[in-house]
Parts: sequence; structure tokens; C-alpha cells
Amino acid sequence: MKGKFIALEGPDGSGKSTILKLIENYLSHKGIDFITTREPGGTDIGEKIRKIILDNKNTNMAEETEALLLAAARAQHVHEKIIPALEEGKLVICDRFVLSSLAYQGVGRGLGIEEVKSINDFAIRGIYPDLILFFYVDPEITLKRKIVKKNADRLELEGSLFHKKVYEGYMKLIKIYPKNIKIIDANKPIEEVFKQSIEEIENLLGKGE
Amino acid sequence: MKGKFIALEGPDGSGKSTILKLIENYLSHKGIDFITTREPGGTDIGEKIRKIILDNKNTNMAEETEALLLAAARAQHVHEKIIPALEEGKLVICDRFVLSSLAYQGVGRGLGIEEVKSINDFAIRGIYPDLILFFYVDPEITLKRKIVKKNADRLELEGSLFHKKVYEGYMKLIKIYPKNIKIIDANKPIEEVFKQSIEEIENLLGKGE
Repeated sequence: MKGKFIALEGPDGSGKSTILKLIENYLSHKGIDFITTREPGGTDIGEKIRKIILDNKNTNMAEETEALLLAAARAQHVHEKIIPALEEGKLVICDRFVLSSLAYQGVGRGLGIEEVKSINDFAIRGIYPDLILFFYVDPEITLKRKIVKKNADRLELEGSLFHKKVYEGYMKLIKIYPKNIKIIDANKPIEEVFKQSIEEIENLLGKGE
Repeated sequence: MKGKFIALEGPDGSGKSTILKLIENYLSHKGIDFITTREPGGTDIGEKIRKIILDNKNTNMAEETEALLLAAARAQHVHEKIIPALEEGKLVICDRFVLSSLAYQGVGRGLGIEEVKSINDFAIRGIYPDLILFFYVDPEITLKRKIVKKNADRLELEGSLFHKKVYEGYMKLIKIYPKNIKIIDANKPIEEVFKQSIEEIENLLGKGE
């Protein structure tokens, strides 16, 4: 693959989306050929799947169904969007990828990290991120940010016990899979978080060396 | 589980659906407590997933996406419908189950039998059929039946090469997993096919011994 692939990861309320906008702005000004995308979703078929996953009416969704739907949307995303962009030499920045499933479904839902990794390995055809920016933030802060959000979806509406497990899942995962994961301290002011993120991206692109 | 679980399997055009209606009729007359259901689908969430899978507009669906969506619908089906019915002691008859995915996606799509089995093992929580009725029919016959069908869905519309592979896949699978699989000769007149099916069902229910 000619292009590079970066995933942004972190619990709900870690400020990922805000930083992503700043990164987009920065890359545009720099004239870097990039796309940003998000999961679940990112394709027409993926957005249809996303709708089913996040619909608050689907309260009786089995945990395995949730994990498999996320992997299905991811497979489509990799096939239709990520691989073609990487082949064209683009920088691909994705809001959430496999690590989210390992934390939310593997640990949060208790389905097991290895089990959820296995269905995702099936989905992604060997396309792993070259760099994962993990936005670390104290759990108290994410919880506060979460509460004020309107129109929360089915996963966001889960209780604080679930989100505590997801957090612990992430903490475990960054120890198990430290390769390619860079931890960004998202407790700091946004300018700092942005600066640290850009440094890591520049390092990957070989411009910061 | 108190109840018994039967899956009907076979290529498109093997006459499964016609026989299923006759079986339903028979079981009703006998006063046997049963449900019939189908895959993909069988639940509200599953039917939404089915729509995405079979929609003719989704021509660019990745093969992995298709396999994962089918497993997702199956997970919901097992969780919401099959397990509760079995726990109530009911006989569950399902039109298509894991074997279909192994034949269609594992062999037909070339994703690999073991790979597709692995994502299905994740989906079904150890709920395997007590009996699989496999409707064997000469490939020429299924092809003829297929052509006359109106409103064919995305999978039915696949070319004859795909359906040939699916057929070969089934032939391979009944050798690999002979346990619980009973082969019904569906080339015979429908009365014969029905009679043989009922014999196998009665055997399972312990009434034919």
C-alpha cells in the first residue's frame, strides 16, 4: 500500500471528533492528500448497518449481533473505501477502528478480546493501522461530557458500568497491543492535544524526522 | 435444551420451502408444539439485516460483509427466537442455518469453510441442529427452477458458476460433517420427499423407533 492509515481511538467523550476537525484543517492547509472517515459507517452499506446498530429501538440486540454488525460494516469500509484510498497513496484517517470493537464488545460486553479480534481479522483483510492515536482522558471527564450530549445513541446510552468496563478495556489493550499505539494525553488543553497529535502524524509521514 | 432443533438445507430450487409447508401441516395435525422460522431473518432485527443482504442495489457488497451480516442475523435469531423456543420444549424447524453459510459464503464466495465456520461459531453460542435435512437434487433441476423465479434477490441472481460452486460446496460439506445430516433425495416426486422427511423427523422425536 502506498498510503498510510491512521486510526483515532478512545472512549466516548475523549474529544476525538473535535481534534479530528482540527487535524483535517491542518492537513488541508499543508496540501496533504487525505481522506477522513468514521466507524461504524463510512459507506452506503455501512451507514445502513450503522443505523441498525445505533437505533435506540433495538434494545434486545444480542451482544454477538452487535459485534458481528460492527465487523460487517468494517469489512465494507475496508473493501470499498480504505483499501482504494491507500492504493491511491492517500493518507486515511479513521475515527474508530478494530480497537474500539475490542474495548466495547470484547471487554465492555464481555465477549472476549480474542473472540472479537478473530471476527475482525476476518473483516479487515490484513489492513491494520500504521498508527493509532489513543486519546487518553480521565474517566470522570468522559462521563461528564457524555451526560450533556443530546440525542445519545444506543451505545452512548449504556450505563456508566458499561463505560467503565470499556475504559478498563482500553487500558488493557494499550498494554497488549502497544505496537503502533501512541497515547495522547487528552486531559490537557485542546491546543496541546492537537499539537501532540500533529507531531505523531508528521512522524509517521516522515516529515518530523 | 428440552426442545429439538431441525435445519432444512439445500441449494436454491431444491424444493425446501414447499416441503416445509407440508411438514408444518403434518405437525399441526399431529398436535406437536413447534415453530418454523427462516434465515436470514426470523426476527425484527434479522429482517432488517436480511433486507441489506438481499437488496439488489447493494451490488458492491464485499464478500466478507455478506458473510458477517448473515452471521449477525443468525446470532440474533438464535438469541431471540431459537433458544427461547427450545427452552420451552418446542420443536424448532429452520429453513437454512450454518451449513448454508458454509456452502454459499465459504465455498461459493471462496471465503473458506473454516473461516466462515469460525464467525458462525461466534454467532450461535453452541446451538447446533439435532438434525439437518439436506435436500439433494440434481444441479440441472435446481437451475431450471431458478430461472423461472420472478423477483429474484441478490443471491439468487448470482450466475450459474456461483450456484455450481455452492452445489459442490454442499457435496463437500455432507462428507465433512455427516453427523446429524440426513440426505433426502429431492429428485423424487414430492410425496416421496415429504414421506422421507417425516420419517427422519419422527425418528428424531422418538416416535418412529
